Amino acid sequence: MSAATTRDLLFMSRALELAQRGIGLTNPNPRVGAVIVRAGKIIGEGYHQKAGQPHAEINAIADAKKRGEKISGATIYVTLEPCCTHGRTPPCTDAIKREKLKRVVIGAVDPNPHHAGHGLTILRRAGISVTSGVLAKESAELNRDFNHWITTGTPWVVAKIAMSLDGRIMPREGRWLTGPKARRVAHELRWQSDAILVGAETVRVDNPQLTVRLPGRKGKVQPWRVVLTRSGKLPRTAQLFTDEFKERTLVFQSTPLKRVLQQLGKRGVTNVLLEGGGKLLGSAFAAGVVNEIAFFIAPQIVGQGPQAIVLPQGKKWEASILPGTLTVEKVGVDCLVRGRVK
Amino acid sequence: MSAATTRDLLFMSRALELAQRGIGLTNPNPRVGAVIVRAGKIIGEGYHQKAGQPHAEINAIADAKKRGEKISGATIYVTLEPCCTHGRTPPCTDAIKREKLKRVVIGAVDPNPHHAGHGLTILRRAGISVTSGVLAKESAELNRDFNHWITTGTPWVVAKIAMSLDGRIMPREGRWLTGPKARRVAHELRWQSDAILVGAETVRVDNPQLTVRLPGRKGKVQPWRVVLTRSGKLPRTAQLFTDEFKERTLVFQSTPLKRVLQQLGKRGVTNVLLEGGGKLLGSAFAAGVVNEIAFFIAPQIVGQGPQAIVLPQGKKWEASILPGTLTVEKVGVDCLVRGRVK
Repeated sequence: MSAATTRDLLFMSRALELAQRGIGLTNPNPRVGAVIVRAGKIIGEGYHQKAGQPHAEINAIADAKKRGEKISGATIYVTLEPCCTHGRTPPCTDAIKREKLKRVVIGAVDPNPHHAGHGLTILRRAGISVTSGVLAKESAELNRDFNHWITTGTPWVVAKIAMSLDGRIMPREGRWLTGPKARRVAHELRWQSDAILVGAETVRVDNPQLTVRLPGRKGKVQPWRVVLTRSGKLPRTAQLFTDEFKERTLVFQSTPLKRVLQQLGKRGVTNVLLEGGGKLLGSAFAAGVVNEIAFFIAPQIVGQGPQAIVLPQGKKWEASILPGTLTVEKVGVDCLVRGRVK
Repeated sequence: MSAATTRDLLFMSRALELAQRGIGLTNPNPRVGAVIVRAGKIIGEGYHQKAGQPHAEINAIADAKKRGEKISGATIYVTLEPCCTHGRTPPCTDAIKREKLKRVVIGAVDPNPHHAGHGLTILRRAGISVTSGVLAKESAELNRDFNHWITTGTPWVVAKIAMSLDGRIMPREGRWLTGPKARRVAHELRWQSDAILVGAETVRVDNPQLTVRLPGRKGKVQPWRVVLTRSGKLPRTAQLFTDEFKERTLVFQSTPLKRVLQQLGKRGVTNVLLEGGGKLLGSAFAAGVVNEIAFFIAPQIVGQGPQAIVLPQGKKWEASILPGTLTVEKVGVDCLVRGRVK
């Protein structure tokens, strides 16, 4: 690997770090980070902070100016191909040309098939040197939900379960199965989501809040709280219908899961966290709509009680995790198993 | 930490490494390793290879002699307190005195309450310098099954399960749920065991061999294959009753699990591998006889079919894993979760 490539990897890694700060906050926009480099030194940094606000490139340019650095002739590293269309903000390709940046290094190309590569073509035509595909996989991974949504119109679906070692949920009422660290990571998953889906039975039995509770973290819009019900019988006094976020609760009655996801996609929901119960999860796996799992496994053997996943009557089926995507780790006293569903 | 202590840890680590070579082969004796050191250099190594054969200390002394090294005045590191009684071989304390070793460093003391510390006292009285408790925890861990058996009379019980991510077993007949690496580790567990327990239903449905299949590994006595049945109805043509190891198959009819374990303990069975099915495992957890779990979790979601653990009718119960003992790791495409049961 040449020195230049190592340097490119280094600065793109930094841009990726910056992009991650936007997790949970930029939706329905992707997370993007950017750094501006002159003579091997970072002179400006930025990331996309919130939909409707300036893009990463613009923030990095502003940062360099604030520091009194000369931008003309410098290199900009961006985790995602710069936009070339007018959205809520002007095209970033214009800003790059205007500021006379000499070289642009890109992580992933725009996943929208109608835009992909256009930004790069515009830059090259303007005489700017363009290198693309530096940490492309990592850059795309960061926006797997956005990429899925922009290409399919439906949100990325993460099935989250907290269960015992033998696949049971909730051994006793009013008691957590998993420990505090696992519960914190579960709140991180909510932080990353635009909507949290539960079945009606979960509302009736648990009366959950489905809010994001991460002390010290701010700026997150409360995810939609979506209840799926067949009968429509839901307790009016449930927290979801009475608390401060009651406007963020949606109820779908007798609506197939795929249809629910399409409708959420139209509302700009790029990712959904499925939080149970067993029947909703079983339906989701059976319908083939689950993209990723996050299973918290508590170090307990229950041997009875409700099961984490219950297949719809009469369905025969088996879902596999995509080879190479399975990760297992200890989270406090519990295990966390993650992977993509094939 | 003084230089001497670091040196002690180093040589005891080596003795532990040697002891591990006896795993699966020494039962019902413990695994023990020994190294003899003079002037900071190992001059002899040995481990206990098989019940009835010389102990680790004797093998280390023989090794030093074979190398033409002078043993008198040297230090011997042993993972377990040397024996001081006549068993199938003469006491090792005699050999240590006879060979005029100057110092003895011990890992764990003899777990047998009738012997514990006696060997050390004998050595001290003979004017030999004794240091005990070096890597004591690791030394005891290596023989957790033997230590349990010698103090309780019943074998250490490991519950082994291969299941899907949602706690189901065997999605389809004639097909493995877990991958080849997990199956190899499962055979390692059999290698370490003196007996493999299954329920009658497993014999009827799976017709298993319950043999240790590890290419290139030899010297292991076929573990007892123990079938627990209520009805006594077992297929006479099953492999367990007809193959080359048919003499190693035991059937217990309508015998409570605890009683079965007591009887196995009397036969010198120090550890047992519970291999299912769900009812046998459920009974074992309910009876509180499981000491350790080894759960192989395949990256699949089945959503139906038999469950890995089925509690006996009318039992309410929950078994926890001892805090701090839970480990999770990837084994090929699968996860392996291990831990001690509280």
